[in-house]
Amino acid sequence: MKAILIVCDGMGDRPSKSLNNKTPLAFANTPNLDKLSELGINGIMDPIKPGVPPGSDTSHLSIFGYDPYKYYTGRGGFEALGIGMDLKQGEIALRGNFATVNEDLIVLDRRAGRYVPEAKEFDALIDNYVPKCANDVKIITEPSVEHRISIKIVGPNLSPYVSDVDPEDCIKIHQCHPLNNSPEAKRTAEIINEFTYFTNKVLKESPINEKRKKENRLPVNIVILRGAGTIPNVESIEKRFDIRASYIAGGALYKGVAHAVGMHPINVPGATGGIDTDVMAKGKTALDNLEKNDFIFLHVKGTDSASHDGSAENKIMMIEKIDKMVGLILDNVNLKETLICLTADHTTPFEVVRDHTGDPVPLVICAENVLTDNVKSYSELTCAKGGLGRIRGVNLIHIIMDLIGKTKKFGA
Amino acid sequence: MKAILIVCDGMGDRPSKSLNNKTPLAFANTPNLDKLSELGINGIMDPIKPGVPPGSDTSHLSIFGYDPYKYYTGRGGFEALGIGMDLKQGEIALRGNFATVNEDLIVLDRRAGRYVPEAKEFDALIDNYVPKCANDVKIITEPSVEHRISIKIVGPNLSPYVSDVDPEDCIKIHQCHPLNNSPEAKRTAEIINEFTYFTNKVLKESPINEKRKKENRLPVNIVILRGAGTIPNVESIEKRFDIRASYIAGGALYKGVAHAVGMHPINVPGATGGIDTDVMAKGKTALDNLEKNDFIFLHVKGTDSASHDGSAENKIMMIEKIDKMVGLILDNVNLKETLICLTADHTTPFEVVRDHTGDPVPLVICAENVLTDNVKSYSELTCAKGGLGRIRGVNLIHIIMDLIGKTKKFGA
Repeated sequence: MKAILIVCDGMGDRPSKSLNNKTPLAFANTPNLDKLSELGINGIMDPIKPGVPPGSDTSHLSIFGYDPYKYYTGRGGFEALGIGMDLKQGEIALRGNFATVNEDLIVLDRRAGRYVPEAKEFDALIDNYVPKCANDVKIITEPSVEHRISIKIVGPNLSPYVSDVDPEDCIKIHQCHPLNNSPEAKRTAEIINEFTYFTNKVLKESPINEKRKKENRLPVNIVILRGAGTIPNVESIEKRFDIRASYIAGGALYKGVAHAVGMHPINVPGATGGIDTDVMAKGKTALDNLEKNDFIFLHVKGTDSASHDGSAENKIMMIEKIDKMVGLILDNVNLKETLICLTADHTTPFEVVRDHTGDPVPLVICAENVLTDNVKSYSELTCAKGGLGRIRGVNLIHIIMDLIGKTKKFGA
Repeated sequence: MKAILIVCDGMGDRPSKSLNNKTPLAFANTPNLDKLSELGINGIMDPIKPGVPPGSDTSHLSIFGYDPYKYYTGRGGFEALGIGMDLKQGEIALRGNFATVNEDLIVLDRRAGRYVPEAKEFDALIDNYVPKCANDVKIITEPSVEHRISIKIVGPNLSPYVSDVDPEDCIKIHQCHPLNNSPEAKRTAEIINEFTYFTNKVLKESPINEKRKKENRLPVNIVILRGAGTIPNVESIEKRFDIRASYIAGGALYKGVAHAVGMHPINVPGATGGIDTDVMAKGKTALDNLEKNDFIFLHVKGTDSASHDGSAENKIMMIEKIDKMVGLILDNVNLKETLICLTADHTTPFEVVRDHTGDPVPLVICAENVLTDNVKSYSELTCAKGGLGRIRGVNLIHIIMDLIGKTKKFGA
């Protein structure tokens, strides 16, 4: 048997008066998700722990079977891996923004207007930097989409326990400082501070900014970093369960986490990580690659983005797009040979909170060998009455692997 | 949003033939508890772990979000804090009884008849004792209600790992002995033994006993100690969630646990900790103090006392009193702004066992932002069908804090 795990980012929600006291998932028209529930076994899942709002990185680690309290090593590493940087044990990665500051290093726009088509040219000016304070170290930079950039620091005696430079507000940039007493953290913070000033010096003098100024665009005159991390030191998911595992995702973070735990990428043209993403193409690609794999992780981000933007309309539209993709998959697999699991990585209420919360998320596992409970529609409330009860995210992968015959007996 | 957590001590029960196979909670007339269930989300909760009978101290620690396996440091510390003693890290507290022994130190009544109006006079005879075996140490004593007393041992190199002197039976008092191999435990046990003999020597000679004898009352001629403990070394609940938290409780133990985790006391005249307690006054006081606080813990003891006494009648009466208090609260809060959670700290079956058992307890969380399940009445059995499923006590505070917007994301 094979398994497709579909994670709909931030799809869980809370009831809203504007939707007749329903959640977007309960309100949306989802005949195919409901069919999954009817044919499958349902439950609710605490991605990390009850009441703990998960980050997207910690939640995915947990859902892939790695306790984030043990294995989480910061977001920077996942972002770097997700944009295709090569990252080894001991190397420190941070994500950052091309930004606009004034003479006093006060942030004017931490995204420099978000539109940075010259990112590659700016990047070339700062790539391969050797700090004066640590000339056994090199900083490699790699631009990502829009104003985003990732860097990695390569060399001996480095630490991810350093604070953010990006103040995430229009105030003076923060000094990077060590978060523990180790000489490694102290040295890494010094390197990051030196690199920050270096990017300011080099970028502000770039003639590209003359051109941006003429077009009434903000200058790109600094890189502000945050989220220092490393790759987690984990046994790969393929080795743990003796499987071939691949991922389909648009957003860099999700690609990065899947990569870090040893899955292989499957590229889908049109998978953007936004609400314009081509969901059907993802479903079709999963089907096309099922033969070569035992396990496919398929991530859809748009539900979360719509929630952060406070749009019930877009969230419902994304849920209904996902529903159509599930219809395509259901029409083309044999549930005797393929298990479909659909869940969320966390709840992001589109109303009031507009950020991740610690509620449990709905969960369905559909395959011919599961017990069919009485749940006939897929939502936060209906799934709570299902045969799976309430489980933890870190247990999910074991349940899936067990149903497809990839677990080993513990004991004799 | 704000939250009121109502814990009804030992309210959970088992079915009784005398109540048509219902529990006291299912048997009682509770329109307001049922309304909470109907408007809210319901579940069952293992205060510690399934099948583990909780103490009231470990259970409350757990419900406040502190794993008792990690943080529990004995009952003595909580009792001392609860009667208003000041207790610092490193100091050892024990609770004890003014008792009656014979010449051979065999216990005749471990409560000396329970009626000790001269407690303050007796206490003055033994307070501020400096042991001969450890003259860098001082023992401070403080009488509590009836025959009860708390003591604290102040000085260097002390340990709470010592056994009880109180045999809890009419046999010879126990020698206090160390519970591990440390010199601190050995020294503390010696101090306690010396103090025990000292109280016997001083109290038996007190002229107050002449008076008691004339009134046909048992003499108070010893203090027998038990439950050595310290204050747990925890981060306060206020700091963990950046809230203002207060407590309303009658019993010393509950005050002590709430105090130990950093809550502020709210005094209620008429809150006795017995079944005569003024429950309505507690509810009114909670409402009056809601504006100044983010979180109020409201404890009612009477349900447990009735169970220990084996009285279904008193237990049902207490439950119906609690129901009226909940009605008052429901009539005076807006569920958009205030969350009400009602549960028990453990089950105490009034029949057969008459002591704490390891059953799960019913739980309801009522607020406008929770999913409303189909549960329409509040009891051990009906709540088990609710949308919360079965949770652990240690997770409850996180769920409450998440719903009132006081949690922080783990990860990014």
